[in-house]
Amino acid sequence: MSADTEIDQLVTRALAGERGALARVLSFVDGGGAPARAVAAAVHTRGDGAWIVGITGAPGAGKSTLTDRLVAHLRADGTRVAVLAVDPTSPFSGGAILGDRVRMQGHATDDGVFIRSLATRGHLGGLSAAVPAAARVLAAAGYPWVLIETVGVGQVEVEIAGHADTTVVVLNPGWGDAVQAAKAGLLEIADVFVVNKADRPGTRDTVREIEGMLELSPARSGWRPAIVETVATDGSGVEDLWSVIASHRAHLEGTGAADERRRVRAADELRAVVFETLAADVARRCSGPEFAALAGRVAARDLDPYAAAAELLGERT
Amino acid sequence: MSADTEIDQLVTRALAGERGALARVLSFVDGGGAPARAVAAAVHTRGDGAWIVGITGAPGAGKSTLTDRLVAHLRADGTRVAVLAVDPTSPFSGGAILGDRVRMQGHATDDGVFIRSLATRGHLGGLSAAVPAAARVLAAAGYPWVLIETVGVGQVEVEIAGHADTTVVVLNPGWGDAVQAAKAGLLEIADVFVVNKADRPGTRDTVREIEGMLELSPARSGWRPAIVETVATDGSGVEDLWSVIASHRAHLEGTGAADERRRVRAADELRAVVFETLAADVARRCSGPEFAALAGRVAARDLDPYAAAAELLGERT
Repeated sequence: MSADTEIDQLVTRALAGERGALARVLSFVDGGGAPARAVAAAVHTRGDGAWIVGITGAPGAGKSTLTDRLVAHLRADGTRVAVLAVDPTSPFSGGAILGDRVRMQGHATDDGVFIRSLATRGHLGGLSAAVPAAARVLAAAGYPWVLIETVGVGQVEVEIAGHADTTVVVLNPGWGDAVQAAKAGLLEIADVFVVNKADRPGTRDTVREIEGMLELSPARSGWRPAIVETVATDGSGVEDLWSVIASHRAHLEGTGAADERRRVRAADELRAVVFETLAADVARRCSGPEFAALAGRVAARDLDPYAAAAELLGERT
Repeated sequence: MSADTEIDQLVTRALAGERGALARVLSFVDGGGAPARAVAAAVHTRGDGAWIVGITGAPGAGKSTLTDRLVAHLRADGTRVAVLAVDPTSPFSGGAILGDRVRMQGHATDDGVFIRSLATRGHLGGLSAAVPAAARVLAAAGYPWVLIETVGVGQVEVEIAGHADTTVVVLNPGWGDAVQAAKAGLLEIADVFVVNKADRPGTRDTVREIEGMLELSPARSGWRPAIVETVATDGSGVEDLWSVIASHRAHLEGTGAADERRRVRAADELRAVVFETLAADVARRCSGPEFAALAGRVAARDLDPYAAAAELLGERT
């Protein structure tokens, strides 16, 4: 049996509801290369209906607890939901992620919830390709909602969250002023602002700061970002948050902006896959005797590095 | 006059000793693209004799002050020296670099000293290509010593410092234990350890920790790394440090290991240039109507992203 056939069969089992098979398929997506390609080929025509909610914000803002609450809210009426926890810096914060996952094991016995962490695969562009691919697998497996939770507000995480259908930015009272949030690029991507830990002092000030900066910025897809106050630890405001997310979905679907977002996301994913393909090509070309000979000529000052690179890539430029 | 001819003439003036021309040539190197290629072609046969000293360590360890002292030591007997301050994260630490440079203006009126900061050019692999290229320009301009000072101990900086002819790792008393230094990859690259601020408590412990970890690690190029105690602020130990650097140079030149290091550096530089070339290629291919059409087909689920990438790169894979 060829590797591709094996993956096809695994995908079939995953889409039929086998959780172990689904976990393995997502590992293939996370690992990149030929298996990730085979998975993409097997699922790309399926699961068009899922809505992707990106949840981002500074570490400690309460994103995981909030995600947990949203999951519980969806499960209360039986809606299936998947969570992707994305951590591009996982070698350094692996412990935190692990702790979150342990906490979320409250849903472990619930077949309607699927939780999975994605780490970087150690090469640039990895997450930008892996996250939408993983989301598509979960959509194809019948999860109508996919929540993508990022660990921090690094450039990659902001980009990933910004390409969701609905992007939720989680702040805290006093977390930071408008300048700080704008600097991190959060203003441009937020469809919904959450001021979490809203039982703390400074909540009104933070809401006003956000309102102030929203007044200065153009609406995105004809939608003026909403601001919701929550206390994730006791569940206050989570129902409001959910109804705002649902309204945003209705707005985007009604105006056709949802399709435009998906086109942007597809272009971004394609760019990431092109980059990965070429990066693999670099690794392959920068090994072996031809490369060693050219590097030797550079060291001997017989060729400059650009001329050597042109020779190495000769048939391709 | 073509752009290349213009750059050739600028290079000629730079190599003849015009400092303004040299600064402009280095800006071309830093900027990448066709001008950087033209500079590489113009200088690659020259300046074989320079020795590159990489100086790395945690922020605040005293690298800049130590570099300043080494410059003064070399200038005392009239030896010409160039300094490249490398900061891959300069958007965030630009202030610190600027402060250092202002301080080093103590050498501003000295024609035998040339100081230049290199920042990232905003794309991966940039510094790995730019630093050796800039060092070659400075060597060709007649600086027999080029000191490369990195701001921190990030992966890129460690890689750059590790490809010097002599790599100096600057620690402080109590800066960290063997595990910490080993984690950062400093153990593998150090030819000389400096315990700077050696007038502070804990110096002996730190020296013993380094000795302990050196006992467990193989010698590099038949050289057992030396440990030197300095107080950069008052100049103590700087003469010792310089004599260790000179011994290391004599050792590597005597054993032929210097040539091997240069071959490794050339291979690394070639890999970085190949990467840059292909990254530019990705940017070019991921724009325009063909890309937009393929991204549209991915969004419409007519093609999966890998199949679309293969089509875009069709003639090249």
